[in-house]
Amino acid sequence: MAGNSIGELFRLTTFGESHGPAIGGIVDGCPPGLVLDLDAIQHDLDRRKPGTSRYTTQRREDDVVKFLSGVFEGVTTGASIGLLIENTDQRSQDYSNIKDLFRPGHADYTYHHKFGIRDYRGGGRSSARETAVRVAAGAIAKQYLKQRFGIEVRGYLAQLGPVKAEKLDWTQVEQNDFFCPDPDKIEALDSFMRDLKKSGDSVGARVNVVATNVPVGWGEPVFDRLDADIAHAMMSINAVKAVEIGDGFAVVEQQGSTHRDALTPQGFTANHAGGVLGGISSGQDIRVSMALKPTSSISIPGQSINTSGEPVELVTKGRHDPCVGIRAVPIAEAMLAIVLMDHFLRHHAQNHQVQVSTPDIAAIARQQAE
Amino acid sequence: MAGNSIGELFRLTTFGESHGPAIGGIVDGCPPGLVLDLDAIQHDLDRRKPGTSRYTTQRREDDVVKFLSGVFEGVTTGASIGLLIENTDQRSQDYSNIKDLFRPGHADYTYHHKFGIRDYRGGGRSSARETAVRVAAGAIAKQYLKQRFGIEVRGYLAQLGPVKAEKLDWTQVEQNDFFCPDPDKIEALDSFMRDLKKSGDSVGARVNVVATNVPVGWGEPVFDRLDADIAHAMMSINAVKAVEIGDGFAVVEQQGSTHRDALTPQGFTANHAGGVLGGISSGQDIRVSMALKPTSSISIPGQSINTSGEPVELVTKGRHDPCVGIRAVPIAEAMLAIVLMDHFLRHHAQNHQVQVSTPDIAAIARQQAE
Amino acid sequence: MAGNSIGELFRLTTFGESHGPAIGGIVDGCPPGLVLDLDAIQHDLDRRKPGTSRYTTQRREDDVVKFLSGVFEGVTTGASIGLLIENTDQRSQDYSNIKDLFRPGHADYTYHHKFGIRDYRGGGRSSARETAVRVAAGAIAKQYLKQRFGIEVRGYLAQLGPVKAEKLDWTQVEQNDFFCPDPDKIEALDSFMRDLKKSGDSVGARVNVVATNVPVGWGEPVFDRLDADIAHAMMSINAVKAVEIGDGFAVVEQQGSTHRDALTPQGFTANHAGGVLGGISSGQDIRVSMALKPTSSISIPGQSINTSGEPVELVTKGRHDPCVGIRAVPIAEAMLAIVLMDHFLRHHAQNHQVQVSTPDIAAIARQQAE
Amino acid sequence: MAGNSIGELFRLTTFGESHGPAIGGIVDGCPPGLVLDLDAIQHDLDRRKPGTSRYTTQRREDDVVKFLSGVFEGVTTGASIGLLIENTDQRSQDYSNIKDLFRPGHADYTYHHKFGIRDYRGGGRSSARETAVRVAAGAIAKQYLKQRFGIEVRGYLAQLGPVKAEKLDWTQVEQNDFFCPDPDKIEALDSFMRDLKKSGDSVGARVNVVATNVPVGWGEPVFDRLDADIAHAMMSINAVKAVEIGDGFAVVEQQGSTHRDALTPQGFTANHAGGVLGGISSGQDIRVSMALKPTSSISIPGQSINTSGEPVELVTKGRHDPCVGIRAVPIAEAMLAIVLMDHFLRHHAQNHQVQVSTPDIAAIARQQAE
Repeated sequence: MAGNSIGELFRLTTFGESHGPAIGGIVDGCPPGLVLDLDAIQHDLDRRKPGTSRYTTQRREDDVVKFLSGVFEGVTTGASIGLLIENTDQRSQDYSNIKDLFRPGHADYTYHHKFGIRDYRGGGRSSARETAVRVAAGAIAKQYLKQRFGIEVRGYLAQLGPVKAEKLDWTQVEQNDFFCPDPDKIEALDSFMRDLKKSGDSVGARVNVVATNVPVGWGEPVFDRLDADIAHAMMSINAVKAVEIGDGFAVVEQQGSTHRDALTPQGFTANHAGGVLGGISSGQDIRVSMALKPTSSISIPGQSINTSGEPVELVTKGRHDPCVGIRAVPIAEAMLAIVLMDHFLRHHAQNHQVQVSTPDIAAIARQQAE
Repeated sequence: MAGNSIGELFRLTTFGESHGPAIGGIVDGCPPGLVLDLDAIQHDLDRRKPGTSRYTTQRREDDVVKFLSGVFEGVTTGASIGLLIENTDQRSQDYSNIKDLFRPGHADYTYHHKFGIRDYRGGGRSSARETAVRVAAGAIAKQYLKQRFGIEVRGYLAQLGPVKAEKLDWTQVEQNDFFCPDPDKIEALDSFMRDLKKSGDSVGARVNVVATNVPVGWGEPVFDRLDADIAHAMMSINAVKAVEIGDGFAVVEQQGSTHRDALTPQGFTANHAGGVLGGISSGQDIRVSMALKPTSSISIPGQSINTSGEPVELVTKGRHDPCVGIRAVPIAEAMLAIVLMDHFLRHHAQNHQVQVSTPDIAAIARQQAE
Repeated sequence: MAGNSIGELFRLTTFGESHGPAIGGIVDGCPPGLVLDLDAIQHDLDRRKPGTSRYTTQRREDDVVKFLSGVFEGVTTGASIGLLIENTDQRSQDYSNIKDLFRPGHADYTYHHKFGIRDYRGGGRSSARETAVRVAAGAIAKQYLKQRFGIEVRGYLAQLGPVKAEKLDWTQVEQNDFFCPDPDKIEALDSFMRDLKKSGDSVGARVNVVATNVPVGWGEPVFDRLDADIAHAMMSINAVKAVEIGDGFAVVEQQGSTHRDALTPQGFTANHAGGVLGGISSGQDIRVSMALKPTSSISIPGQSINTSGEPVELVTKGRHDPCVGIRAVPIAEAMLAIVLMDHFLRHHAQNHQVQVSTPDIAAIARQQAE
Repeated sequence: MAGNSIGELFRLTTFGESHGPAIGGIVDGCPPGLVLDLDAIQHDLDRRKPGTSRYTTQRREDDVVKFLSGVFEGVTTGASIGLLIENTDQRSQDYSNIKDLFRPGHADYTYHHKFGIRDYRGGGRSSARETAVRVAAGAIAKQYLKQRFGIEVRGYLAQLGPVKAEKLDWTQVEQNDFFCPDPDKIEALDSFMRDLKKSGDSVGARVNVVATNVPVGWGEPVFDRLDADIAHAMMSINAVKAVEIGDGFAVVEQQGSTHRDALTPQGFTANHAGGVLGGISSGQDIRVSMALKPTSSISIPGQSINTSGEPVELVTKGRHDPCVGIRAVPIAEAMLAIVLMDHFLRHHAQNHQVQVSTPDIAAIARQQAE
């Protein structure tokens, strides 16, 4: 219960620090017989990995994931899957100067008080480097969901500082360094980030993730609702400070007559709910949005204390992302895929004999739309 | 794993439907030796219970909680605590007309597809009536946290439709029917609700919860962060569609130099983080905000389908809250108390020998403020 | 994690003390659509309940179980099932004299040290009274397993003190007060127990449980093996001190050529393994045996200490079973049914798409035997 | 919930197959600040590793464990600990001939039916090779328990086929290839094993494990009793078919007046209970005994079927232990240490404020004995 696991039936447990020899994890509960496309898994890791553009940290990691078990001749066996990613570009000397300091806005102070000891190099266990393992595990889940149900789990950058995407063109998302779905905003993003780097500061972001083709019925009453588990998973990503499902905070000013999505034989008339009713998937798109704070690792001097409680001034060196929200897109996709995979298994375990004659109206609507 | 439990070491499991003979639950993991103030527990139930004002459902329930075990001569024994609340005012006839219909915006459709069978009376298991048990369990957690650490967990209505509280005066919260901390807004709330009832519609709300005096160090890396578990708990409350910690979505447009809370020997200079850094409590106030959707149970006719998939028009009868957000205040407090209690035990289990000489700067700041 | 739950996907959580107002529990994860035979459930409770013969405690309890939720019009809904059994014949005055004493061989001393407080009346939470709830939950599992797979879970008294059953005639088990499958031993049992009661002493017993028609494939590598979870469940029954699967301790002197059960197209040639290979059911009968200690509640004076650590002499009064092993038969059946039900769901969740052309040779053998 | 984890608060999850590139695991929940003696951990692995005597398999593995995380400058940090052991001597060609066969007495048949696919090389996931990771994790637990409480967890071979140890001399256990505590039996063991190897057969064994200095109070009512979790852990070891606590099956013929251990101010007068009362440690020695079946991997031809269900004759080649019970001694110690460590944390989490004035009579007895 020390917290390094997520999921009940499709369960990921991770280990590893930013500057240790390796990070890794175990996926327990993957169904047998899944033909794994290792290139696709590596592709997701490459989307997340550092050093790919000038807007992300210049740390260079190959982030090659090794499958140590649970896969035999390219197919999952149902046994636990051991994942290993070696750390190849850790530069510990960058961090020795902050050994006895607490970087403001970081977990240094809280880890120190919690554990009494910490691997201070690069944030140790609190580093976002750990999320590479999530991406690998999420890619396994994505493949299962895609092959079995045609589910797509896709994310994009919805806003970065003041720059908001106004169009959602999925074909654009992978065409730029920002995962931005609006081609008209690339220049503004580029310009904003250039200025930001000059100033030495960082900025927050909003990331959206959408899952399509999710069948009706996934999610458990009353605590482990699908939306509750999604909120947990997203908030477990470093820097995330807020999560919305469907219309999110906009519901505060809505009235029931507007908010409730009417049912018709041809589908729902709207999707204010974001694909979840009573904690259970409705068959509509699962729509999730989240806010990521600006990283506190900036070159602007900050006020802090040291481990003796004395005041110090501190400048974060090392290589950091000016906007951690950008690389969070594949991580958020991975987390949503893990939650969906887990809930599919949980739903199926208890309810596999259920047969209803009522049509799945969201599926009907999708078919008509095609 | 069917989802009716929350917490790992302080664990609540609930049962019961809106119109069954009773609802109840089991609290497992409560430390022994806690002297329970049963009146205070009942008081929290009374704050949540229906029929207390004209702005909540007119269903009348005494909501008297019985302690069936785990308490001996007024003191907890460490054994599992059985809780029982009888349903005294269920009127099943109100619901027979919707037996074969799906109310839009409700869990009817998703429960039907998930389970193939449902207790349609009053929403059955998906009814918010279940939350009464949460309030009872949360009240136990509150008492432990208060007695041991001086922790206060308090909530209020921050916004209802267009009406926002602009002052936070804790002494006002229990003085009105809205849990509103701003005495200047009571009239506007009153007037808005009167009009709303006339129109037969409902409205959303924003509820905030704050925990003070939480020690530094609670929360587990990397998945079971304190904020991730809070998000899960809040999103498990009926109608909640969004959760924020600290500045929440405002961080999207913030820069790191603004967002990061500086550390000084006299305390943090701000609390943008909302009391959580790296998933672990910092000692500052835990600040949580959430959005509750307008209930879909309104007297305005709506479009839907029946269990055969045919179109129907539907008017929700029965007794309903025009704004479910109001009564959510004690529920949100209860959920935060349960999460904190669970994380205290989890933290303590692993780290009980940790001793650090670094001062708890948030505690220092609190002492200076008094 | 305070330990009052068993099972992962079919999960029972219990509460209640021997002399509180009621005992009860929650079954979470029962599939929807199960038509419950409430009489059969009550019948299992009656088999366990005290006061049914002169060889069990003379405490009289009706042990009527109430279903408070999760069942609608006689059918399970998939929601959590609340179970309640009222205590009607608790006589607390019987126990006030042992308030400050530790009965030897009981949990008094260990509960006192663990919790610092205890409900001393009748053993409180450590009383075997709690097992009535297990029997109710197990009866639900039994019905599912029987209806879906034709699984029978049946137990019997294999030995009581020196008296061993030498025949296994299932038709006899319910025909006597001992659950003894050997009609030739009833007289010996009767005579032994009469003498025992006169002496004021108690005696141990061996109980066997067998599950037939269990499909091949249930059980999880590597820790949650079916046999490991059975061992856990049986050892969680009050007074159980040992558990065997298949040949059990006899394997110590066996050689591999004898022990291994050969496979033929017509079935296994033997069942030394007890129906489990590598922690997974083989399709053969699951054979479990367990030892129950003689109760320490006897009228022969014993040496002990009081809560101040001073020596005392102590005679247990109250109403007790001279052989707790007898009434353990329905409890052991219930526990095996719960474990099987849980493992069916766990197996099914992950492996529901598995199709193999290799025949189930144990099923073939059973069909041929009929 | 696929079963590759054990423990709640001190939690081990493992991965790896006999003939994959590596095996490994993650220990989650180890308290921070533990100074690890890596040599002692490696020593336990060496005690278990194959190829050390002529009575164990001749497969040669260095079994060097690498700590990939959670340890910083020789001290645990509280973060999850990644463990890796590379497989260096897997000879897959030895196994290709059994690709389509089911070895009798093995998990081949059950894995095939459960998962539809299996890594047939050396038993894949069902191989006892996986237990090396348990030994590494158990060694961490042992060190914590020893440093904090002076707990010793020690095992020995109590019986091998017909040869029983009659003396328990702890100093002898590590002096011979059998972990035998009776120096007078070494010759008989040697001679028996020589003959056994000639015959190509295998034999069962009894292994005992004892934990001393365990404080009173560990173990949870009512399902997660200390003895129930010990039974689970031991039965999860490959080949174990039976587990006893204290007097075990001997209680069947005992009477209560004999079995119950009297309490005196100077200690218990006996330890029939094996150190557990009501599922909670009493302070006395925890005494556990288990039976391990003879391995089915023998060179004597056996009858079986292939994956098409056709009869085949089969001789197991490869390198195998004629008595797997011997090498099980360090594994059983590891499992007991893991269970104790987990229960210490669980007990401590809930009951850390408990203070009782009643003396710990088992501790008094131990002090007097010294």
